[in-house]
Amino acid sequence: MFKAELRSDALKGLINVISTLIDEVKFTISPEGISLKAVDPAHVAMVEVTLSKAAFESYQADDTEIGVDIDKVKDVLKLASSGDIISMEQDAEHGRLVFKVGNVTRRMNLVDTSSLGDVRVPPLELAASIEVPVTDLQKGIKASESISDHIALIADSERFELHCDGDTDSVDLVMEASNTVKIDADMKVSSMFPLDYFSNLIKAVPSDLRVKIELDTDYPVRIVFALAEGNGVVKYLLAPRIEKE
Amino acid sequence: MFKAELRSDALKGLINVISTLIDEVKFTISPEGISLKAVDPAHVAMVEVTLSKAAFESYQADDTEIGVDIDKVKDVLKLASSGDIISMEQDAEHGRLVFKVGNVTRRMNLVDTSSLGDVRVPPLELAASIEVPVTDLQKGIKASESISDHIALIADSERFELHCDGDTDSVDLVMEASNTVKIDADMKVSSMFPLDYFSNLIKAVPSDLRVKIELDTDYPVRIVFALAEGNGVVKYLLAPRIEKE
Amino acid sequence: MFKAELRSDALKGLINVISTLIDEVKFTISPEGISLKAVDPAHVAMVEVTLSKAAFESYQADDTEIGVDIDKVKDVLKLASSGDIISMEQDAEHGRLVFKVGNVTRRMNLVDTSSLGDVRVPPLELAASIEVPVTDLQKGIKASESISDHIALIADSERFELHCDGDTDSVDLVMEASNTVKIDADMKVSSMFPLDYFSNLIKAVPSDLRVKIELDTDYPVRIVFALAEGNGVVKYLLAPRIEKE
Repeated sequence: MFKAELRSDALKGLINVISTLIDEVKFTISPEGISLKAVDPAHVAMVEVTLSKAAFESYQADDTEIGVDIDKVKDVLKLASSGDIISMEQDAEHGRLVFKVGNVTRRMNLVDTSSLGDVRVPPLELAASIEVPVTDLQKGIKASESISDHIALIADSERFELHCDGDTDSVDLVMEASNTVKIDADMKVSSMFPLDYFSNLIKAVPSDLRVKIELDTDYPVRIVFALAEGNGVVKYLLAPRIEKE
Repeated sequence: MFKAELRSDALKGLINVISTLIDEVKFTISPEGISLKAVDPAHVAMVEVTLSKAAFESYQADDTEIGVDIDKVKDVLKLASSGDIISMEQDAEHGRLVFKVGNVTRRMNLVDTSSLGDVRVPPLELAASIEVPVTDLQKGIKASESISDHIALIADSERFELHCDGDTDSVDLVMEASNTVKIDADMKVSSMFPLDYFSNLIKAVPSDLRVKIELDTDYPVRIVFALAEGNGVVKYLLAPRIEKE
Repeated sequence: MFKAELRSDALKGLINVISTLIDEVKFTISPEGISLKAVDPAHVAMVEVTLSKAAFESYQADDTEIGVDIDKVKDVLKLASSGDIISMEQDAEHGRLVFKVGNVTRRMNLVDTSSLGDVRVPPLELAASIEVPVTDLQKGIKASESISDHIALIADSERFELHCDGDTDSVDLVMEASNTVKIDADMKVSSMFPLDYFSNLIKAVPSDLRVKIELDTDYPVRIVFALAEGNGVVKYLLAPRIEKE
């Protein structure tokens, strides 16, 4: 059983992030909230999202799993304005999920969860941790997109840097440690990542948020940010691109 | 002879509706106003529009007919802002219609009206009549577009329903009779229609308007709404899609 | 040596005009400001732009030349909001130009100026001079685009006219001499021009500006307008299309 009401903005934040990776996702539902883990088909990135009961306007659920087609939920979101309440209810008998927005009811077949494998997110201790406003990263990405298809993230105790190096041109975004840029790094760390994955995720983050970036040398980067005003969290892990010598 | 001035919004409302059906239209002009009847090439829908003299800022006309290319009038509308006055004058000598918007003059050849046949709109008494804000219908349509290519309209004395049923998913818009949703129906009526025609029309209706829907079982639906603040009227008739057993 | 800071709006005005003609341009830089002359590959139009030192927020330069890829500068402009300061600095050692917007640094390879030939702008005395708000011209162009691929500019002592004549349709924009439309013409002059060039230029002019049009019969037209609040000037010369009899 699953029956809940959520503000459209929270659902949109959730769906935007997932849709950068996959088309179908399995939500794990419990009395305390919902969660999901997903990996993209190329196994380059994975995301782990939790949304606690407190994020919802109303929430009733037993332990269950539902498989959802992300594009269909995007269609539902188009029916809602910012601030609208979206109601969701599992119709277990017909294997459907029923959304209501205003006086529109949208029923959709669930996706068979057995085709949606379980995802194991590896535990990783990363050496450096940086916290920045996402808008700065969004500008750095915008500048980088015509330059190259990969991007380096570099941090030491004093600055965080995003560096993109093309054949003829290059882009640097340099952020010095400050009140708004928090850096916790004992030594210099640096890894290179596929720009498209990094870009798609960073663009999906609402621009009024701060993101935490956990970084190490030639390790995956973990990007963490809040959903639903702190009642949810997104943890995104992106594999490095390791340069062959 | 035909010479008139009309606010761009009224002309735009008129043209948007016609352009859902056809590219060229014959306006029938009289000293009292203008009217047109048009049917789409597939003969699935027809529209009847009248715009009385009172809708115009100024109006002088004898009985005449002019054939107009709708896309060219759309180009003229792009030159005008909301509230601008558009002047129109028939140049009978050169077989042209002359539009003026500000200090731009746009002359266009008229279309030969002999190629634009006369349209007979059948008189129909339909059992149920519903009056609703068009925005509600617009939301129901938006939800339905990815589901199926036809849509059912259903009414009884207590509610009006729009239902779209696809292979795996479905959409319902349910409107209970209320102060804003007026329903006049003695028995339950229900017909199915091609979604694209219904959708194109409903989207062409300015979103601050109410529309009247006249409905019967397996009969055409008639959709009626005002133009030019009540000085004109659109009557749109859409053939049902009758399911073969 | 070249190092300067410029408001994004001024740089954008400059780049928008150049990009209607060419992809790469040679800037001639002196201690007093920058200038450029460019001709399009088909030799139909040429433009001469000067931007004095006073247009810049800060400015330091020796005499030098730099070749720039216009599309790359457009990418830089996308990083800036209206009012932002863009800093530019020549990195002579690496043959690069370095732009800074906020904390983003964008380095780009310079284009070899030897491939960018010198442009000689012919001195021309044209009989008529007209000064009009560019928005009026923009409307006339918008109306003309579906009509024909050339446009006539006509002036006498009392009015300035833009005329576009197609196979079936025509457009006129007529501007009578007035407080906002200044006309200085002793006799009637008239020339015809390719609409796409004229249109691209006029659309690139910020819509709050006035433009000066210098016109003669079957001669090029010169279009002049200010950049950077009068601290720069654009002079655009467009060859007439002379009708064969």
